[in-house]
Amino acid sequence: MNVMNNDVMIHPKALVETDDIGEGTRVWAFAHVMAGAKIGKHCNIGDHSFVETGAVIGDQCTIKNGTMIWEGVTLGEGVFVGPNVLFTNDLIPRSPRLPDARTRYAEKKNWLVPTKIERGVAIGAGAVILAGITIGEYAMVAAGAVVTKSVPPHRLVIGFGARVSGFVCRCGHSLQFHAKSAICKKCKTRYSSTKEGIRASVSRKS
Amino acid sequence: MNVMNNDVMIHPKALVETDDIGEGTRVWAFAHVMAGAKIGKHCNIGDHSFVETGAVIGDQCTIKNGTMIWEGVTLGEGVFVGPNVLFTNDLIPRSPRLPDARTRYAEKKNWLVPTKIERGVAIGAGAVILAGITIGEYAMVAAGAVVTKSVPPHRLVIGFGARVSGFVCRCGHSLQFHAKSAICKKCKTRYSSTKEGIRASVSRKS
Amino acid sequence: MNVMNNDVMIHPKALVETDDIGEGTRVWAFAHVMAGAKIGKHCNIGDHSFVETGAVIGDQCTIKNGTMIWEGVTLGEGVFVGPNVLFTNDLIPRSPRLPDARTRYAEKKNWLVPTKIERGVAIGAGAVILAGITIGEYAMVAAGAVVTKSVPPHRLVIGFGARVSGFVCRCGHSLQFHAKSAICKKCKTRYSSTKEGIRASVSRKS
Repeated sequence: MNVMNNDVMIHPKALVETDDIGEGTRVWAFAHVMAGAKIGKHCNIGDHSFVETGAVIGDQCTIKNGTMIWEGVTLGEGVFVGPNVLFTNDLIPRSPRLPDARTRYAEKKNWLVPTKIERGVAIGAGAVILAGITIGEYAMVAAGAVVTKSVPPHRLVIGFGARVSGFVCRCGHSLQFHAKSAICKKCKTRYSSTKEGIRASVSRKS
Repeated sequence: MNVMNNDVMIHPKALVETDDIGEGTRVWAFAHVMAGAKIGKHCNIGDHSFVETGAVIGDQCTIKNGTMIWEGVTLGEGVFVGPNVLFTNDLIPRSPRLPDARTRYAEKKNWLVPTKIERGVAIGAGAVILAGITIGEYAMVAAGAVVTKSVPPHRLVIGFGARVSGFVCRCGHSLQFHAKSAICKKCKTRYSSTKEGIRASVSRKS
Repeated sequence: MNVMNNDVMIHPKALVETDDIGEGTRVWAFAHVMAGAKIGKHCNIGDHSFVETGAVIGDQCTIKNGTMIWEGVTLGEGVFVGPNVLFTNDLIPRSPRLPDARTRYAEKKNWLVPTKIERGVAIGAGAVILAGITIGEYAMVAAGAVVTKSVPPHRLVIGFGARVSGFVCRCGHSLQFHAKSAICKKCKTRYSSTKEGIRASVSRKS
């Protein structure tokens, strides 16, 4: 049923124009990946999603349906992007076709504001990520959140403005810190909280 | 212009892989219904929508454009799902391709959390419905709401966290209760409020 | 790669059924424009977008991916509609296929509530616009906002309920008023604030 090229699965109703796509990656129906987009290995790109020229997606990412990964957005390894998550790359949008906006769009790409999503982050359904933000390793963004500032690693953020409401493990489960250390009840990874941030203090056994 | 099979209308640019779809149902352009999805009679499945294997849609439902009905989501009869409404089925998402998430996704479908939407419910544009919730008969969810807990029948809920802001009739119009009874000004249905909940006390005349 | 008819560019994977589309307009992959929709000149209609019969889009508009422009929605010239922006046209939705909703949908289009977006407005990613609203010239709606009431010209609105948080120039940059006048630091347009509203008091030099 699906077209296989170089160990990439492209659904016959998808449109893939890039050559820079890693082995084991699958692209589903009605998805559109533009020329010049870069996608890693073993990713899953859901139905009706869109990956723009200049976007970068790391290995092992899961891109759910209906998402758009614009130029200026970089996803690290193993990022989960929920359905209809919205990235942005222009903080002061106007129609570039409108004469009044001529000064803004006259210089090439001076409006482009990059966004960086680090390894293992998960972004819940329908969250909106303002341009210019970094979301740190293994952070989790709740469904429907509007993220207006950067998020440090391993935080859970919720709501409009996306305030921090807790900590999460690499595996996703919540973490409770006592005396600057925590152990995940699910996967047993140990963490310590230092000036430098939250670190897994014992290597995982998986 | 459209393909008719067994009284089901499938737009030539739709992709329908299930056989379990009721008569009189219409599926529009760029929609994708997977094998193993179950859709009732006389439904309307809008453009760019997605119905996953294992999803269940009752008779007479209206599924507006861009929605995704995942495995684990069950819609009763006559449900209205507005454009880009987002269901979810995993409360602690991680990319299953990420080695750190191996413990979470090792056991088959232990992450799957079901959602139930009862008869006659209407969900406004862009609302996000957290997994594990039941929305009771004829409730209405305002556009843009993020629903984080179950909603009893005939309630109108709005905003982030979706607080109850009123009552609605089967026909959709607001209800004002006086001394535990109400009558809809639009369709004249009568209701009583008892310990068991809100009930239509006189059968409708339609 | 793309089909050109009468100076309109239609991507081979788009579906355009209207004849009323202006020169220089481009329609991208998996977009669907229905018969009877009206689209002006030099517009850009993004991937996976949907323009319904009866919708009206002015010249020079930028419609980003995944948006739906319904019957009842009118966009002026040079409007920017961000990705997955949600318009609505029914304030009390029910599935019209549900017998309980018969009274509501019995009369033709009595449920239809129009929305008007004026010249130069920009609507950020994922914003929800309630039916019945007018958004005034050059106003800006922040990403993720839920707009529940009309917005005067040149305002910036943010959040749920979309409160006014500032003023914006035609070109998009913020404006600071002093003694009822302001000058844009970016494009040098001058404004005065009078009883009639905010006016550009000196014609722009662009």
